[in-house]
Amino acid sequence: MKQPIPIRTIERLSLYRRLLNMQLEAGKLNVFSHELAILGKRTPAQVRRDLMAIGYSGSTRKGYDIEKLIEKIRIILDDPIGQRIAMAGIGNLGRAILSYFMGRRPKLSIVAAFDVDPDKVDRVISGCRTYHLSKMEEIISQEEITIGIITSPAAVAQEIADLYVKAGVKALVNWAPIPLEVPEDVFLENRDIVMSVEKAAFFAKNHK
Amino acid sequence: MKQPIPIRTIERLSLYRRLLNMQLEAGKLNVFSHELAILGKRTPAQVRRDLMAIGYSGSTRKGYDIEKLIEKIRIILDDPIGQRIAMAGIGNLGRAILSYFMGRRPKLSIVAAFDVDPDKVDRVISGCRTYHLSKMEEIISQEEITIGIITSPAAVAQEIADLYVKAGVKALVNWAPIPLEVPEDVFLENRDIVMSVEKAAFFAKNHK
Repeated sequence: MKQPIPIRTIERLSLYRRLLNMQLEAGKLNVFSHELAILGKRTPAQVRRDLMAIGYSGSTRKGYDIEKLIEKIRIILDDPIGQRIAMAGIGNLGRAILSYFMGRRPKLSIVAAFDVDPDKVDRVISGCRTYHLSKMEEIISQEEITIGIITSPAAVAQEIADLYVKAGVKALVNWAPIPLEVPEDVFLENRDIVMSVEKAAFFAKNHK
Repeated sequence: MKQPIPIRTIERLSLYRRLLNMQLEAGKLNVFSHELAILGKRTPAQVRRDLMAIGYSGSTRKGYDIEKLIEKIRIILDDPIGQRIAMAGIGNLGRAILSYFMGRRPKLSIVAAFDVDPDKVDRVISGCRTYHLSKMEEIISQEEITIGIITSPAAVAQEIADLYVKAGVKALVNWAPIPLEVPEDVFLENRDIVMSVEKAAFFAKNHK
């Protein structure tokens, strides 16, 4: 694969994989592009384009082989030796993310969670070891963590982002309701709880 | 205001308001466009354009009056009589959102949360009344709720979306990791926990 894959394609591949896994669990072995399109709320042409872009095409008679397609997506999305994630901020949101990920993504695991609350550190929460924030640099290097999740209050989110960057993390997912500054070579995905609800509220208001 | 305000502007106004409130809490009364730009990681020209679009301009000498600007944004974003939100799925993520919103947005309140677990219904959780999912239509009409949040497992998210739409909700925010189908006139904002982490992982993998 010489061409870089566009970010929107990555998002759709992540989605297709989840839909394919659901189909597999439901006992299906093959799926047609139009079925995957309906499940993913996309057009069949888009599904075919995306899968062609990763070098996969189905049979016209039987559709795509689900297991082979999942494997193909795995090669694109996953690191063969797995990737390790840290989380900073063990509140309700942090726990929700921990319990979602635990055991569900063998190649993508949250291996350390940080907080400053003495009641929350040096424990195992939802299967994840927890540490005091002051140990972040040491643990991230020791555990070879490359991805950082921020689920802290807004007031300390930038400070945590700086610690992650200093520790060598390459990608951040920020759930704190505040924009963050990171160096050019660090990927930052912002997920703002408040903004999403305020947007919905604005549309609901104008729809009365 | 005759022109509809673009969705990206709405997102930025939501952000500016949070930043302005933080400034106000820190004891500031005025702010310059370049200061707001730095806080919001935008360009000063963009900030000025956005605020001009809502009919507000600052003084060159003193910048924007923070309280007046918050009030101006309030008129655009908020409903004068307030808007009422429901949530379906009272897990960790639901609790995180509830505890964030409670008391913090006087014009935007989560007034009902639904679940099917007998231990979670007919109670008050983080200040919010909880009900069995079977009462959704009745409560949404009675409480005049127009916005629905989905924090349920993926398997039941479409069913919950259908219930919300049937009950008359006009905007949905979906945190379940599955795409949903809603009628054209219902606003849908998707917030997928898994996809955001998988995107970050893809970037971290290609950065080694």
